[in-house]
Amino acid sequence: MAPPPPAWVQKLVPSSPRGQDLLAAERSGSQVDSDRLAQLLHGKEDLELKDRIEKIISAEKVFDKNELLSMGRVDRIQRSLARGKTLKRLSDKHQWSKEEYKVAANISGEPNVYGLHDGMFLVTLREQGTPEQHKLFLEKAERSEYIGCYAQTELGHGSNVRGLETTATWDPKDKTFVIHSPHLTASKWWIGSLGKVANHAVVMAQLFVNGKNHGPHPFVVHIRDLKTHEPLENIYVGDIGPKFGYNSMDNGFLLFNHVKIPHANMLARFNFVDPVTSEYRRVGSPSLIYGTLTWVRSHIVLDSGSSLARGVAIATRYAAVRRQFQDRDAEEAGIGGETPVLNYKMVQARLLPLLAASYGLHFTGRGMMELYNANQEAMKKNLAGGTSKRSAGPEELNPGADLLADLHSTSCGLKALGSTIAVDGLEACRRACGGHGYSSYSGIGPWYSDYLPTATWEGDNYMLTQQVARYMLKTARGVLNGTAPDNETARILKHYLARKDTGAAFDVLNNDQDIVAAFAWRTAYLTMEALRLRDKEKQSWNSLLVHFWRLSTAHSQYLVVRNFYDAVVRDHKAVVAQVGEPTAKALIDLYRLYALTTFEANGAEFFTSGAVTTAQISLTRTKGISALLDAIRPHAVNLVDAWSFSDYVLNSSLGRKDGAVYEDLFARARTNPVNDLVFDPYPSSDTLIKRVDRQAKL
Amino acid sequence: MAPPPPAWVQKLVPSSPRGQDLLAAERSGSQVDSDRLAQLLHGKEDLELKDRIEKIISAEKVFDKNELLSMGRVDRIQRSLARGKTLKRLSDKHQWSKEEYKVAANISGEPNVYGLHDGMFLVTLREQGTPEQHKLFLEKAERSEYIGCYAQTELGHGSNVRGLETTATWDPKDKTFVIHSPHLTASKWWIGSLGKVANHAVVMAQLFVNGKNHGPHPFVVHIRDLKTHEPLENIYVGDIGPKFGYNSMDNGFLLFNHVKIPHANMLARFNFVDPVTSEYRRVGSPSLIYGTLTWVRSHIVLDSGSSLARGVAIATRYAAVRRQFQDRDAEEAGIGGETPVLNYKMVQARLLPLLAASYGLHFTGRGMMELYNANQEAMKKNLAGGTSKRSAGPEELNPGADLLADLHSTSCGLKALGSTIAVDGLEACRRACGGHGYSSYSGIGPWYSDYLPTATWEGDNYMLTQQVARYMLKTARGVLNGTAPDNETARILKHYLARKDTGAAFDVLNNDQDIVAAFAWRTAYLTMEALRLRDKEKQSWNSLLVHFWRLSTAHSQYLVVRNFYDAVVRDHKAVVAQVGEPTAKALIDLYRLYALTTFEANGAEFFTSGAVTTAQISLTRTKGISALLDAIRPHAVNLVDAWSFSDYVLNSSLGRKDGAVYEDLFARARTNPVNDLVFDPYPSSDTLIKRVDRQAKL
Repeated sequence: MAPPPPAWVQKLVPSSPRGQDLLAAERSGSQVDSDRLAQLLHGKEDLELKDRIEKIISAEKVFDKNELLSMGRVDRIQRSLARGKTLKRLSDKHQWSKEEYKVAANISGEPNVYGLHDGMFLVTLREQGTPEQHKLFLEKAERSEYIGCYAQTELGHGSNVRGLETTATWDPKDKTFVIHSPHLTASKWWIGSLGKVANHAVVMAQLFVNGKNHGPHPFVVHIRDLKTHEPLENIYVGDIGPKFGYNSMDNGFLLFNHVKIPHANMLARFNFVDPVTSEYRRVGSPSLIYGTLTWVRSHIVLDSGSSLARGVAIATRYAAVRRQFQDRDAEEAGIGGETPVLNYKMVQARLLPLLAASYGLHFTGRGMMELYNANQEAMKKNLAGGTSKRSAGPEELNPGADLLADLHSTSCGLKALGSTIAVDGLEACRRACGGHGYSSYSGIGPWYSDYLPTATWEGDNYMLTQQVARYMLKTARGVLNGTAPDNETARILKHYLARKDTGAAFDVLNNDQDIVAAFAWRTAYLTMEALRLRDKEKQSWNSLLVHFWRLSTAHSQYLVVRNFYDAVVRDHKAVVAQVGEPTAKALIDLYRLYALTTFEANGAEFFTSGAVTTAQISLTRTKGISALLDAIRPHAVNLVDAWSFSDYVLNSSLGRKDGAVYEDLFARARTNPVNDLVFDPYPSSDTLIKRVDRQAKL
Repeated sequence: MAPPPPAWVQKLVPSSPRGQDLLAAERSGSQVDSDRLAQLLHGKEDLELKDRIEKIISAEKVFDKNELLSMGRVDRIQRSLARGKTLKRLSDKHQWSKEEYKVAANISGEPNVYGLHDGMFLVTLREQGTPEQHKLFLEKAERSEYIGCYAQTELGHGSNVRGLETTATWDPKDKTFVIHSPHLTASKWWIGSLGKVANHAVVMAQLFVNGKNHGPHPFVVHIRDLKTHEPLENIYVGDIGPKFGYNSMDNGFLLFNHVKIPHANMLARFNFVDPVTSEYRRVGSPSLIYGTLTWVRSHIVLDSGSSLARGVAIATRYAAVRRQFQDRDAEEAGIGGETPVLNYKMVQARLLPLLAASYGLHFTGRGMMELYNANQEAMKKNLAGGTSKRSAGPEELNPGADLLADLHSTSCGLKALGSTIAVDGLEACRRACGGHGYSSYSGIGPWYSDYLPTATWEGDNYMLTQQVARYMLKTARGVLNGTAPDNETARILKHYLARKDTGAAFDVLNNDQDIVAAFAWRTAYLTMEALRLRDKEKQSWNSLLVHFWRLSTAHSQYLVVRNFYDAVVRDHKAVVAQVGEPTAKALIDLYRLYALTTFEANGAEFFTSGAVTTAQISLTRTKGISALLDAIRPHAVNLVDAWSFSDYVLNSSLGRKDGAVYEDLFARARTNPVNDLVFDPYPSSDTLIKRVDRQAKL
């Protein structure tokens, strides 16, 4: 450890007023009840669960987060392995459920090398393997004897799964599949848990039987020796190197040179090759699997709220502690002292809409999960009844299929919107912290870097918008020719078509329901416009991509507004019962702020669609938003407190719950490992280091 | 080094078509002459200078850039010192001028620990020291015996220099100043070159003489022993820890416990304390110093163009190589093969406006530098004539003062706009590279991380907009009461006021000059609106901050559009003579694309100001921009080539000039140091590492 500073340094305190007192005043000055609000957001059980597990995790030296910030990749990846092993050990010791283990992994604060083994590898074996394959692979995998990954993406192929180059060719002579990488671009790439820890991989490869390509299928391939952990023959595997974030994960590459695997290694729950006749066959329906991606995306929407909220919590608390300048009017009036930057309208305008968005995304994610679960239950019942034995895409399933198609599209658009808001919002929060936001001790940068891939994985955010547009166009055609199912999308289109000629004049400034209606109207307008350009003007798909992106964004914004409305306005009485009147009122203000800032930023679209007058846009800009910022400002700290992030989780000097911002920054800076070195600073000397106080440890 | 891969891996090549062939086809398919355009952008001499110096730098092992990406901070900072020493040695060997040294430092690719010594420390001693002080300090500093930094920012104080807490109290008894940190928040913070290498600091401290505070002044303080390099008594100094970027710089902290320094150590060119009478005095005029910040900001504007262009060059080349899916229409028509993503309208809409912005910012920065130099010359002549001996802020100087005030405001707004466009644009480029954009080998992430502070330093981008607004309001009042000077800002306001009632109907789609006029009109409208809210409606300064930020942004966008217009439309004939007709035409298209995308994104403001009809906005969206994307698409690669970034400078697999994207990514991944480790992956074992191929070196 670094030596303690001299006595005169130890005596120093920050100039007053202290951050501690400022935050205490913020909290007592607001009637928003952050504890009851926390229960509304998370539920009492989840809060207790997190508390209990955090105590266990944070007590372990290996889960110290401060050291990670200065580490290079060689150290980071070893530490990640050590943390991963500790997590597994703790899980055994405390007999954690899957859910508890996941909570523990999240609290530990960085992805670890077992992440994709625990996730996609086990899930794929479970969902796509036969009972025999569960015996062969899954049981060992669950005991961590087989450690695996899910190898789909290739060096030259991301979103387009059908374009994968890796081949699996059936050899009827010896009843094997030959796994092969015909080109360098066929190398598996970005595969988490592959670079260092996996000894097995589920490999997605083009299945060739008798010269015919049946498309990508999953194969279990043994890649490293179980004892030496060295790559097996004709396997070339390794880590893909440093990244913008996620450096604790061993994302890997993998190449095959005509590697033979047994017939049993093709995951055969839904498709298989008959080993006797060499016929390719389908069995059962993978329809429940289709839901997995929807479920994953719904979770991303839910998480985007809390992911953004971390940055907002840090930036808001720090803005209440950090003082800078006087207000210009106060200065001219000769009023002394600097003002907390949270009092500046420009800072409010940057932070509070993000606070509102974090709540909106959370309620939207929750709404989607509920819908998804209800539908999944309905489908399971139906499948058990045996009505859906044919192979089918989501659109063809019944009942629940119409809803599933709607949910699928919804989840695509909302995943794109939610993760984009969170990613951009986190960076906005970091910048709102001024210079100190750039320090790793702000806690925002490292979190942002690790969160960033969410904008790309599970469907690139731009690519996904095409799926939404395609669905909107299809539904619009259905509405026009009377074949559309009765779901939310169809209803807003019908409503628009019925009222289009009489026009709308929504009062977004004074009527909460009109806000929802205006967003629905704009979505419908953009959909019908897209339909006209595509079907009437016969414009090329490519030329419409920007329009489609706009449409998907608009529709997803509508969904957030509608879900937010349902949660806090429609259900206002229930909310009041849970959190009390002042808190319920603050939630309504957050709803309005999210809606009106989104409305204002897209004013031209609302105006062109005929949803509102220009006066509404103008008034929103000059009065509406400003009044909401004033209304929410006093409750900002309590509203971020309700997210219940512990100091251990935030790992942020600026976002300290007690406001001891400067003490914490100083303590961390002082003890950072670079301060163990004494330089020889003269260019004339070849020596770099005169003295080292302690050796930086691996 | 990592062992070579097996023969079967060595034989693998990417699937065709190869990146090399795709880029070659892009280049031969366009008539844009990237070589001649490069000369227009940079000048032949600068290009040759850079080439010459890059050969020297890239030949040194210590300047290998690949290794840096995996290093932790302890290694990074030592490597930075080694690189810094090498730079100094090369500079001596080749007898580089200051300019050549700076070029070399830039090419080396990361800030090094001497950066602030070479910059602000020497500059401050030179500009603010007396000839005696030059002997005492500057000469030794130029020989690197004194290594220094510029210590202004404090833990609790950034933008508000007047709020600094560090004190320098004159002690008439022993003719010394006592430097002291009264609180923890007084600690100097973020000071580059302070954490590890400096043995001296120029410290900005509140000067107290006989109990009176004369505000912040600069003092030279000796902080580390010249031999042992250990901190001197009552000095507490160190490195502030890991950051989002800039980890090769030893940004430091510094605390003083009543440290006495001689009278000679207060830099006394403009102010001093009479050692006999203890009187505080001003001498001479610091007016030329006032220009320094303007000069620095103008440079940031110029650099923002090329900084952004690096990301655009990488993303554009990669988008021409990376293929994904078929166009949906091609797919339906059964046309095979994947298409380069640069053919997708959505990708064009994300990248090409940034390409246009990079050119626009470059021409704007150049225009500002020219104006600044001309004005500085004029002022020097005038000062030599002795008419301006009084102490004065920029507004009070004459002649050139009106121009300087305009330039000052212009530089504030453009610094904010330019660096914001560059920062956000670089991240947009990174994301446009899809998954591989997240790899450090993309070259964008590391560059982005190091460039990011530009949005905060030399004036926070949001804070600066207040200065612009203040100046705009002042000029508007001057125009109304007839006292405004004749400068650009006043002229656009006068023009607007004269025509306001008859109204405007600019044809932004068909008339290049009308575009400039529309931007000027919108600026003037927002200025008069701000004036009305402030002076007539008496709204508080704080309540107007968002409006001011809009105004500053609008005005700066006008300036970019106007400078871009001057450079490529007004001077079209000269440009044709330099680069030929097709290239000159492409530059005009870039001008239009920058202007129209900016116009479209702010459509509501243009419409409300009465500059255009809604039809113009609508047509710009549906036709205008799309047509420009089509026109520029074929020239995209040649237009980024003209920036003349070498592969060594870009350090990017994705942006390789030859298009060998996948070969390069694979080669780097394969040899990354994490691949030297063989893990013990089993949670049941405490061992982490089974085997290490080579030891990761410091």
